[in-house]
Amino acid sequence: MSHTIPVLEIFGPTIQGEGMVIGQKTMFVRTAGCDYRCSWCDSAFTWDGTAKDDIVMMTADAIYDRLRELGRNAFNHVTISGGNPALLKNIDNLINILHSQDIKVALETQGSKWQDWLLEIDDLTISPKPPSSGMNTNFEVLDDMINRIEKSKASLKVVVFNKEDLTYAKQVHKRYPGISFYVQVGNEDTVTENDEKLVKKLLSQYEWLIDQVMNDDEMNNVRVLPQLHTLVWGNKRGV
Amino acid sequence: MSHTIPVLEIFGPTIQGEGMVIGQKTMFVRTAGCDYRCSWCDSAFTWDGTAKDDIVMMTADAIYDRLRELGRNAFNHVTISGGNPALLKNIDNLINILHSQDIKVALETQGSKWQDWLLEIDDLTISPKPPSSGMNTNFEVLDDMINRIEKSKASLKVVVFNKEDLTYAKQVHKRYPGISFYVQVGNEDTVTENDEKLVKKLLSQYEWLIDQVMNDDEMNNVRVLPQLHTLVWGNKRGV
Ligand code: SF4
Ligand code: SF4
Repeated sequence: MSHTIPVLEIFGPTIQGEGMVIGQKTMFVRTAGCDYRCSWCDSAFTWDGTAKDDIVMMTADAIYDRLRELGRNAFNHVTISGGNPALLKNIDNLINILHSQDIKVALETQGSKWQDWLLEIDDLTISPKPPSSGMNTNFEVLDDMINRIEKSKASLKVVVFNKEDLTYAKQVHKRYPGISFYVQVGNEDTVTENDEKLVKKLLSQYEWLIDQVMNDDEMNNVRVLPQLHTLVWGNKRGV
Repeated sequence: MSHTIPVLEIFGPTIQGEGMVIGQKTMFVRTAGCDYRCSWCDSAFTWDGTAKDDIVMMTADAIYDRLRELGRNAFNHVTISGGNPALLKNIDNLINILHSQDIKVALETQGSKWQDWLLEIDDLTISPKPPSSGMNTNFEVLDDMINRIEKSKASLKVVVFNKEDLTYAKQVHKRYPGISFYVQVGNEDTVTENDEKLVKKLLSQYEWLIDQVMNDDEMNNVRVLPQLHTLVWGNKRGV
């Protein structure tokens, strides 16, 4: 079992809807398990037990085969997402296989746990969670992570739901000025199927977030982004 | 007069709504004049005479002063846009002043004209125009530009309205594989004030463009993006 990875979803090609390579054509591998319990988690099925029967223990080779089956030759970028994939020791096998095929590898983690293979990731998004999540950031662990990684291949991203979150985002940006910084609109309703209403709400929250950042001289070298996949597909999974 | 720049708009801080630094907090300086006449130009007022009384001849110092007046200390990024700012020989003064203040400079041009100061731009977007524009690309001039620029500071962006445009985008991507490549949804209605209808239309065109690119194995290392400012503010100018 130690050479397998708990996988919940493999899908694509689709766009990366957020963060440092927003818009990038990519395939997704979603791993199971998270050490956090964010109040607004949009991937709660990775840890709340509701999808536990869908978890498949896969070798890196089997994951690669499935990616090729789905994406054929129409991709050269794979995003590993969770949950928190940094809980898993043996992602390095998968990274090596992908790199050997000239495929770039992106990964998102909240920054709560170090793995040496994080150094191999081409587009690393570290997304510490703001107060509205109900979680507490361990800044010692995060400091250590930020110190070790190659800054040009990484970015920080904070999801913002309210003013308190924005204050937190600012603290993070100030603490790590040398790394690209993104703020992202939070999605308050991860279950609605009324896409038109959702788009309207998300765009108005996005406008609010832009306004906040634009007038703040402690938030200059910042990129403010929505989640594109939510604008296009709403709360649908697997797109 | 040779040390002044014809300016149509200075505004911000706002987000860069498109391309390689999408979401970035920036100020905009829009210069007057274009050597193209794209059928769907969303800045036609820069060249069609309708705003000719608004053109102000400004020195680089005066532009900098105006930027500070508007943005105070709440920016460290300026985007020079047009029209085609590469028609102007003396943008280098402005770039130097901005750099001396630790401000990064982005610029967008269709790639029809070389200027040595293009080498000084931090985020250079070259956006050759597809068939639907009614314009023809001079690939000799474009080859020369792509050869000279520093690839890590530049990107190519093609706006796509239809399948023919997509074929053109693919040609451009294949011709210059070493440079980051973006395709962007075209806005077919640059005058409507019905924002809700516009957003719906733009998101469905964006979904179409994503579908096209996702299934095409000649378009792998590609980023597919909408215009965020149009989603948020519709066709409003100066935001
Ligand atoms: S860290 Fe991410 S996956 Fe884990 S609970 Fe929070 S939002 Fe969900
Ligand atoms: S090159 Fe740009 S500014 Fe010039 S006509 Fe075309 S779209 Fe308009």
